[in-house]
Amino acid sequence: MTDPRIERSRMLILRAAVEELGEVGYGGVTIESIAARAGVGKSTIYRHWPDKLDLIADAFETFHERMVPELGIQSVHDSVALLLRHVADVVVDSRFSRCIPALIEGAERDPRVREFHHRYSAERRQALIDLIAVGIDAGEIGPEVDPELATTALLGAIFYRRLMTPTPLDPGEADRLVDLVLR
Amino acid sequence: MTDPRIERSRMLILRAAVEELGEVGYGGVTIESIAARAGVGKSTIYRHWPDKLDLIADAFETFHERMVPELGIQSVHDSVALLLRHVADVVVDSRFSRCIPALIEGAERDPRVREFHHRYSAERRQALIDLIAVGIDAGEIGPEVDPELATTALLGAIFYRRLMTPTPLDPGEADRLVDLVLR
Repeated sequence: MTDPRIERSRMLILRAAVEELGEVGYGGVTIESIAARAGVGKSTIYRHWPDKLDLIADAFETFHERMVPELGIQSVHDSVALLLRHVADVVVDSRFSRCIPALIEGAERDPRVREFHHRYSAERRQALIDLIAVGIDAGEIGPEVDPELATTALLGAIFYRRLMTPTPLDPGEADRLVDLVLR
Repeated sequence: MTDPRIERSRMLILRAAVEELGEVGYGGVTIESIAARAGVGKSTIYRHWPDKLDLIADAFETFHERMVPELGIQSVHDSVALLLRHVADVVVDSRFSRCIPALIEGAERDPRVREFHHRYSAERRQALIDLIAVGIDAGEIGPEVDPELATTALLGAIFYRRLMTPTPLDPGEADRLVDLVLR
């Protein structure tokens, strides 16, 4: 059993890491600045995470696990729409939203960030690819749909709206997007 | 008529601006570094462009005009595929490719960059939106397709592959993407 005080302090540090990343960009984040924001000593952080990328990666994995929606029993179409609404929600969430450009720019300059950013995105993408493949097997989605390409178009629309336009996709538009790409 | 030496020097400066932006990011670019790269004096640049954003914006507009493909007489499907192949080509071109994260990150930190980045993207997007609307009017594309949402999914796929995965979309995949979204 984890000591609840240790767990609370861990979550505080992870949250501070995400906030710092969004605020100053990957190049600007330091273990010192995260420690200061979390109100802990540098050594507390170094005891658990060897460097800032490990800490940031742990933050993303941890928050992802806590946030991923339960799909329950429903059609593949509705499950895909639920996952996309979730992604659209995360993308507009102020805490995570500013981390996306920071990770993209960090990935451009640092091979380790790139490796993490691409692996993390691929893992998130896989759930959608698998779900669409199930829908094709079940006859709910046409066999002409390529699950990978469809996933790229679905997620691409959400990220494009966030990164290239002033108005992120409203989570309520997820259904229309699924209708368009998987009809 | 423009003096060809002046035009050549202008193109040299515009090219240097794009290269600098890709190499050092928006925050790192200065008029000095662009002048040094182009091999001209700072005053030559300031005579024509009041600041670095004007110069970068002019570079994007100028190169865009020179590169946009002629559509000719063909089906809307083929025209859309041609435009997407062009976007996919530009996105993998080494000179422009690295500018995309730089502009995204710059847009995050500076309202003037954001305004330019969003306007430039919107203008590029409009050609596709109009083309899809023509295809719907002509009965070539189903009336259930929303031209704006479809454009977002098509361009989104290309940018997603560039920004979130190790492998940009191959321009040869543009046809399959159009089949998927506009079928």
